[in-house]
Amino acid sequence: MYQSEFEIIRRYFVDSGLYFTAPGIELGIGDDAALLHIPQGKLLAISMDVLVEAVHFPVAADAGLLANRALAVNLSDLAAMAAEPFCFTLGLVLPSNNEQWLEGFSQGLLPLAKKYNCPLVGGDISRGPLSICIQVQGLCDKDKAVKRSGAVVGDKIYVSGTLGDGAIALASLGLKSHLGVSFAMEDESQSSSFHQYFKNAYYKPEPRIELATECATLLTSNIDISDGLLGDLAHIIDASDVGAQLLVHRIPYSEAALCCMSAENRLMAALHGGDDYELCCTVAPQNCEKFEKKATQLGARVTCIGEIVAGSGIRCLDESGTLVNTEAGSYLHF
Amino acid sequence: MYQSEFEIIRRYFVDSGLYFTAPGIELGIGDDAALLHIPQGKLLAISMDVLVEAVHFPVAADAGLLANRALAVNLSDLAAMAAEPFCFTLGLVLPSNNEQWLEGFSQGLLPLAKKYNCPLVGGDISRGPLSICIQVQGLCDKDKAVKRSGAVVGDKIYVSGTLGDGAIALASLGLKSHLGVSFAMEDESQSSSFHQYFKNAYYKPEPRIELATECATLLTSNIDISDGLLGDLAHIIDASDVGAQLLVHRIPYSEAALCCMSAENRLMAALHGGDDYELCCTVAPQNCEKFEKKATQLGARVTCIGEIVAGSGIRCLDESGTLVNTEAGSYLHF
Repeated sequence: MYQSEFEIIRRYFVDSGLYFTAPGIELGIGDDAALLHIPQGKLLAISMDVLVEAVHFPVAADAGLLANRALAVNLSDLAAMAAEPFCFTLGLVLPSNNEQWLEGFSQGLLPLAKKYNCPLVGGDISRGPLSICIQVQGLCDKDKAVKRSGAVVGDKIYVSGTLGDGAIALASLGLKSHLGVSFAMEDESQSSSFHQYFKNAYYKPEPRIELATECATLLTSNIDISDGLLGDLAHIIDASDVGAQLLVHRIPYSEAALCCMSAENRLMAALHGGDDYELCCTVAPQNCEKFEKKATQLGARVTCIGEIVAGSGIRCLDESGTLVNTEAGSYLHF
Repeated sequence: MYQSEFEIIRRYFVDSGLYFTAPGIELGIGDDAALLHIPQGKLLAISMDVLVEAVHFPVAADAGLLANRALAVNLSDLAAMAAEPFCFTLGLVLPSNNEQWLEGFSQGLLPLAKKYNCPLVGGDISRGPLSICIQVQGLCDKDKAVKRSGAVVGDKIYVSGTLGDGAIALASLGLKSHLGVSFAMEDESQSSSFHQYFKNAYYKPEPRIELATECATLLTSNIDISDGLLGDLAHIIDASDVGAQLLVHRIPYSEAALCCMSAENRLMAALHGGDDYELCCTVAPQNCEKFEKKATQLGARVTCIGEIVAGSGIRCLDESGTLVNTEAGSYLHF
């Protein structure tokens, strides 16, 4: 069946329920631009991510899972600023108007859009090699946006959830990893029982919106771990003009990661792997107890893994206080 | 020379001067999200366009021209809402980190960004088949946004500039046109002397920001002509639940279009061609004189080409009042 661009938009992105009314949306899909009303006292946070087939996700990946991941990684950027999701726009480039794919894709966007009351308000669709560009719009109180640049000496460094699963998932899904050939499952039979866990970790990362927005005033800096802990923490210390000391034995891992990977590869996955979409944040010492308590109330796991120090660069220490060699780099797109 | 994503962003998108300070930009490139301050009494207008190589522009097109076009067509969407440009974001997918290309591309964005005080504030860059996704953010007074849905019976229909050049440019540039094989230059020798004119029309369309924002209160509806006059006017009448009568002999053409094309192909280009990025708007009869005077003051050409009527659909009449058959459709991406 022949479908025009407008029919596709109507059928899969309006009628599917992705364009719903929400506070502040004056006008959404169907005009030359969407019109948004920003409440007084709020800042607008905007962030864009592009996902390209065969670069960020495997060829012929499930459309619904892909959609979920695409929106999740964008919402994770809002979590990094402690901003509440507001609405999103979608630039979709598609090889053909495959109805089944479009149906799966739009349905895959729906759960997170609904959960965060974040409707689709516009975008563009075109024929071409598959890629997905999403821009999220978020709102935060003027005095509550958490930037990368606020870390000060003495602050404790925390991460949410567990690290390394994103990179291990790549190996589990049989995808190329930039961590090298030695980065592989310890035990294939073990890994297969955790396959679904890692698939979920990769396609359904949970954006830490609630943790970030509820704890915003307790954080001095914040970032989401998309390129690997070392690379992302480096952004914080560079922007804040400080150094960091990491206690690598404190890094939290999932049960699956503990079962499937050697200690060395697990550490590599956490430090350089990326794709975890957990938060890495800094908290002043006097607020740590409050932060940990609040996180517990929210059902979120947070772990203190180090401290901001004077100087520059990141020193990684093991349990015995010995400097750990952490070669390899975090994910670089070029 | 090896360049990381971050080096590319710094070198070509920050140091190049595209990320400059402008009112309302609290935080731009360099964090997980940009933070924008929206002045009280203003609405935020957002619009996204994706341009894909070999679909929207020829393979190996000049990077600077491409950049100009990509930003221009997005700004044209803001003009359609009568919104002032505020800032933009860029999702760039690139086959390789070609320095010359990146240099040309970032320089090509600069003139329009500077002219409209519209800095680059964020985005994403990735390896993959060449495509350019731009989202523009604009501002308009709460009571001044011009939607597609405000046209009423009796309103006059105007277009800015001249029509058809976008489609004729495609033929002049040797690109495939959806208008069919008979859509060609009348006289090849003539066309070559106008080649530069059409190249400019295609790569450097002028977004009608000033005309739209200065005349916002005089317009009952507005759209930019990206898919062809008939297709875009259809959006206005559908959204406004009215019909339209077009006097096709009134459609304004450039000297180049008059020289190079048969009357029939010229009309086809205007009605179905698209890529003109002129405005098509409606004005209440009592405001037409004011509108025309204001346009003249601004140095903008506007032409009344018809009227909003009761009913639905678009009737095209020629000089003698005879109904004109206007087959073919406007540009459909799928």
